[in-house]
Amino acid sequence: MSGNGFGILFRLTTFGESHGPAIGGVVEGCPAGLPLAEADLQRDLDRRRPGQSRFTTARNEPDQVRILSGVFEGVTTGTPIGLLIENQDKRSVDYREIQDRFRPGHADWVYQKKYGIRDYRGGGRASARETALRVAGGAIAKKLLADQAGVRIQGALTAMGEVAIDRQNWRWEEVERNPFFTPDADAVPRFEELVKMIRAAGDSVGALLEVIATGVPVGLGEPVFDRLDADLAKALMSINAVKGVEIGSGMAAACGQGSMMADEMVPDPGQPDGVAFLSNHAGGILGGISTGQPIVARLAVKPTSSIAIPRRSVTLDNQACEVVTRGRHDPCVGIRAVPVAEAMMALTLADHWLRFRSRQGR
Amino acid sequence: MSGNGFGILFRLTTFGESHGPAIGGVVEGCPAGLPLAEADLQRDLDRRRPGQSRFTTARNEPDQVRILSGVFEGVTTGTPIGLLIENQDKRSVDYREIQDRFRPGHADWVYQKKYGIRDYRGGGRASARETALRVAGGAIAKKLLADQAGVRIQGALTAMGEVAIDRQNWRWEEVERNPFFTPDADAVPRFEELVKMIRAAGDSVGALLEVIATGVPVGLGEPVFDRLDADLAKALMSINAVKGVEIGSGMAAACGQGSMMADEMVPDPGQPDGVAFLSNHAGGILGGISTGQPIVARLAVKPTSSIAIPRRSVTLDNQACEVVTRGRHDPCVGIRAVPVAEAMMALTLADHWLRFRSRQGR
Amino acid sequence: MSGNGFGILFRLTTFGESHGPAIGGVVEGCPAGLPLAEADLQRDLDRRRPGQSRFTTARNEPDQVRILSGVFEGVTTGTPIGLLIENQDKRSVDYREIQDRFRPGHADWVYQKKYGIRDYRGGGRASARETALRVAGGAIAKKLLADQAGVRIQGALTAMGEVAIDRQNWRWEEVERNPFFTPDADAVPRFEELVKMIRAAGDSVGALLEVIATGVPVGLGEPVFDRLDADLAKALMSINAVKGVEIGSGMAAACGQGSMMADEMVPDPGQPDGVAFLSNHAGGILGGISTGQPIVARLAVKPTSSIAIPRRSVTLDNQACEVVTRGRHDPCVGIRAVPVAEAMMALTLADHWLRFRSRQGR
Amino acid sequence: MSGNGFGILFRLTTFGESHGPAIGGVVEGCPAGLPLAEADLQRDLDRRRPGQSRFTTARNEPDQVRILSGVFEGVTTGTPIGLLIENQDKRSVDYREIQDRFRPGHADWVYQKKYGIRDYRGGGRASARETALRVAGGAIAKKLLADQAGVRIQGALTAMGEVAIDRQNWRWEEVERNPFFTPDADAVPRFEELVKMIRAAGDSVGALLEVIATGVPVGLGEPVFDRLDADLAKALMSINAVKGVEIGSGMAAACGQGSMMADEMVPDPGQPDGVAFLSNHAGGILGGISTGQPIVARLAVKPTSSIAIPRRSVTLDNQACEVVTRGRHDPCVGIRAVPVAEAMMALTLADHWLRFRSRQGR
Repeated sequence: MSGNGFGILFRLTTFGESHGPAIGGVVEGCPAGLPLAEADLQRDLDRRRPGQSRFTTARNEPDQVRILSGVFEGVTTGTPIGLLIENQDKRSVDYREIQDRFRPGHADWVYQKKYGIRDYRGGGRASARETALRVAGGAIAKKLLADQAGVRIQGALTAMGEVAIDRQNWRWEEVERNPFFTPDADAVPRFEELVKMIRAAGDSVGALLEVIATGVPVGLGEPVFDRLDADLAKALMSINAVKGVEIGSGMAAACGQGSMMADEMVPDPGQPDGVAFLSNHAGGILGGISTGQPIVARLAVKPTSSIAIPRRSVTLDNQACEVVTRGRHDPCVGIRAVPVAEAMMALTLADHWLRFRSRQGR
Repeated sequence: MSGNGFGILFRLTTFGESHGPAIGGVVEGCPAGLPLAEADLQRDLDRRRPGQSRFTTARNEPDQVRILSGVFEGVTTGTPIGLLIENQDKRSVDYREIQDRFRPGHADWVYQKKYGIRDYRGGGRASARETALRVAGGAIAKKLLADQAGVRIQGALTAMGEVAIDRQNWRWEEVERNPFFTPDADAVPRFEELVKMIRAAGDSVGALLEVIATGVPVGLGEPVFDRLDADLAKALMSINAVKGVEIGSGMAAACGQGSMMADEMVPDPGQPDGVAFLSNHAGGILGGISTGQPIVARLAVKPTSSIAIPRRSVTLDNQACEVVTRGRHDPCVGIRAVPVAEAMMALTLADHWLRFRSRQGR
Repeated sequence: MSGNGFGILFRLTTFGESHGPAIGGVVEGCPAGLPLAEADLQRDLDRRRPGQSRFTTARNEPDQVRILSGVFEGVTTGTPIGLLIENQDKRSVDYREIQDRFRPGHADWVYQKKYGIRDYRGGGRASARETALRVAGGAIAKKLLADQAGVRIQGALTAMGEVAIDRQNWRWEEVERNPFFTPDADAVPRFEELVKMIRAAGDSVGALLEVIATGVPVGLGEPVFDRLDADLAKALMSINAVKGVEIGSGMAAACGQGSMMADEMVPDPGQPDGVAFLSNHAGGILGGISTGQPIVARLAVKPTSSIAIPRRSVTLDNQACEVVTRGRHDPCVGIRAVPVAEAMMALTLADHWLRFRSRQGR
Repeated sequence: MSGNGFGILFRLTTFGESHGPAIGGVVEGCPAGLPLAEADLQRDLDRRRPGQSRFTTARNEPDQVRILSGVFEGVTTGTPIGLLIENQDKRSVDYREIQDRFRPGHADWVYQKKYGIRDYRGGGRASARETALRVAGGAIAKKLLADQAGVRIQGALTAMGEVAIDRQNWRWEEVERNPFFTPDADAVPRFEELVKMIRAAGDSVGALLEVIATGVPVGLGEPVFDRLDADLAKALMSINAVKGVEIGSGMAAACGQGSMMADEMVPDPGQPDGVAFLSNHAGGILGGISTGQPIVARLAVKPTSSIAIPRRSVTLDNQACEVVTRGRHDPCVGIRAVPVAEAMMALTLADHWLRFRSRQGR
């Protein structure tokens, strides 16, 4: 309840700073009997971790996760799952020069004002490094959802700066074949071009992501405040640098008319609930409750403020200064946010699935 | 925790269906000593309630709120504030014909599937009528924030369908002078025109809203999951018909570059914290924590699915049917969502302000 | 989370003061499909309410509860159940004389210090009147547990002051036949004698209660902090005037030896889980988890401090004074605490039963 | 919310099994600016850990705690404090023989039934080993309370089996001078005698503990469910083997009369709030709110069921069997529960102190 935990029944709590000895987390509420190994978590961690391609930061963080509890003889026991990732590549020296000044667009200044102290090394708690634990916890949620509920969650990058994919080219299998997590193979060279240009300019660029869950049963979501879309909005907006979240038709819904946007229904014996929707403007959620259609969420990730172009700022003693980021940084942090967004959707759905079961069961 | 409450320390719990005997709520955590009267709540309730202008539904719901507890001799006592609004204009007869069929785009079908039963009268719990309590609770939050923290919250409608305001014409004082809650007086005739057209067509239209909080102290928001923007996203997405939420630059952040979007800072002795930001792309929130700048949120409200144009749907026994809504409905539900959005931002900020105080000890 | 709600999935939130216009509550999380009527709640409310016999206070509070939501055509809908009881017999005049002084042993002084203000009429929020809502909410929990889980909850008074029942005489059917809720018919005249004596002396007396749940499935309770016994302890200790809570062997466990107190197990095909326990020192809970044996809790209720014997105290401006309670008060508040204790156990078990289902289900 | 966390604002979440690679925890909500080092935690861990005297188990667990986050340059940063204790003395071999049978009086059987699987090594999650993390987290709470609120918490053992201390001999300084944490030096030889006898018999014995907090400000506790005494009851009852909890006069309150038990008040300029209580039957809590007097809680710890005397039980496939515990076990687990009880009271008070501050704005 102090902000470092997410979920009611399936709950992830994280701790750790970018350059402390380790980061870690606790997953509570995972039902007993789920086969689980560190390798199940490592796959997504490897997708998120830096140093995977020349289009992300050159930092090399192996991000090797250890499961410390909650799994016995390869199977979850129903007790909390302790997770630990040692921090290895901790070049704190890189951060000395921002020790006494605040990076604009980062959380440096507000942390200092809120807490009166901050761990300035690499952003400390505000670093995106914390999201490694979300990915680890999300991998457990994904496995639970896949094994017990038949739910599959996939994310993709659909635009970077002004360059967008052609949705006609969407192939899920492409996502794991390129370093951008993009489903449009034709967009890959254009993204490469953009990143090169941005990097050469010492600048950074934003990104648009989409996360989709299929196989979600009808009925997940708790009216009226814990609507599934409300909890998803929180989950995705809680990711570093996200500034907007859309469900289904999203912001465009403001422009539409009811006659176009209400998803019509027809009987369809082929569907699990006997009903087919003729469209999915709702993004799989009506009245805050899942409809059984794919859940479609989009999120906008802002360009990182860690750039080589000097920006005006202030020092600890409130003098004017300039800040230039010389460390190893991603030109587009949105790329690595794809597995994080998948994880946050998985955590949200796993929690709501357990909440759903508490009333449906028996 | 079952979805009908919002907030940790300042918490609103609501109950009630559209056509039951009454709707009500409980506000917990309001500090003692705040002068409070029913009139303080009624003002915002009157702004939200139907029948206020010819551009909203013709239903006449006086929405007279009673404070049942927590206030003694005109001042809050620190104990929970019970709120009650009797339902008066309950023409359930209007809803007989949807008793055995599902309105597309509404929550009818998912409620039936989730619960195996639904109160079909006026949408039951899924009706926007529930938001009256959010407005009442939000009015208490607003008063607390204004009196004790110097925070002011205002909302406005900035677009309806394809018609948008000219932001150059933004005048806050206009918002209460027209039935659209829009700050651009010049846009009023264009909105009137649009609503007439939409109503004539038996259709509905979406809307874009903006809510702004000024005077927010630096430091509200709890990393990492209960970021202020994450909780705002949940708060706003939990409003009926909302499909997208933006903070600051919002979805457009995906298109930007870091050199443009990091809000630079300079020393400024005139500011409470001695620092001025040169822009506000962040929308007043960095790393999930308030910066002291205005908090800027936008939300898209979809067009209501209650329209006079026949839509395909299914019946309780899964037969194909058509649904036409004959009841009295808003052509643009987004209009009346303005005070609701203000209320949800107020509830979020009041909660985080108390959470902030618990550690700061102001 | 501000203290007026109890439970995670099955949750009761209450509001209201002793002499305000009404007291009320919200029950969240009750599964849909449970037949429920106001009469189901009224029975327990009538057991708790004052004026039922000459051994309790002469106040006459009809305590007529209204269900305002969550029930449609006689069946729960899964949405929150709003409850309201109007306050009728509000002789605030009785309380004028304690307006400027604090009753010793009551919450008057701490409320004034904590909140800087208090509703002095009848104890305000601290009045046992609030427990009427617990009884109403508990009745819903009882019905859910009985209908869907086969659980039965019964409470009894086993001692009053120095007068105790003979456990050999325990007959559950006696409990509803005497005004003391005691299972030992032979003890009734002795309790009558004691109450008469206490009342004549203008004094009050404490009581010992026991609450037992039978039919509880194995497996309720969440290690390690939300143990079933821990949550029961909180539930029972949260009742006004309770100073001690025991599970199974209780405080006497301190005196015992392991060879006597470990409940041995033997195979028994007649039991639901194939195992019989040879004793129940554990009170139906091991490691915080229900064993399937009866859950046995005891609680001590202190004598009310509202007595006709003058007690030393202080005034609002910190002058020495005497306080004599002249209002209509129970000589033994523990009697009417029996249905309250049953309610709190029911709320605890209903919540844990839903939590249990979330992981066991399917 | 899945049972492994305690507290709303100051929150401890733990993970880990007795014989897994490590146990750990997360402390959320500790305000920034508190000087904190591992040595601050180690002192209480050393008091709790086995192998300290010949009167407790011979297991040797160094219980060396590491702080992994939340502390920077010797001071808390306001971010979560990650704690880790590696398990070292893991003789799982001792537990092979209970792999296929259930120890009566332990949680073995209910874990198996609840989860369908259990980590049988040393009790797994149900082992008292988990309380090491409570002690570590409690040490942080103690330091916060001491440094910022002037609160001191001390625990003591007051009886073991039928042997009780003489309260006239109570000297706090004695508690740390004997292996029983008892304040009565004269009782030490009697306790030694008893433990020798019990150990020789292969049996175990229960204990009575008392925990007292002094310096607690008036006003902690949230009516009506999160009363300070209710939360304390939960906190203490959640400790392994505890079967009863008392506040102030405790179970004896059932026997008393109002004229004896209401704590009278008189003006006293020497007291922080200008009022002196003439007795403390309330145990420092009235109406669920702290009075400023010492908070006095007692708890009964049952004798461990791990004894060398054969007990009847059942096997995994429900055959009758006998269980004899041959491992290294405490003859009186209540002794080592003293620092655990202190920790649970500290966690409760720290949480309520932050909740108090959120509304008082100290």
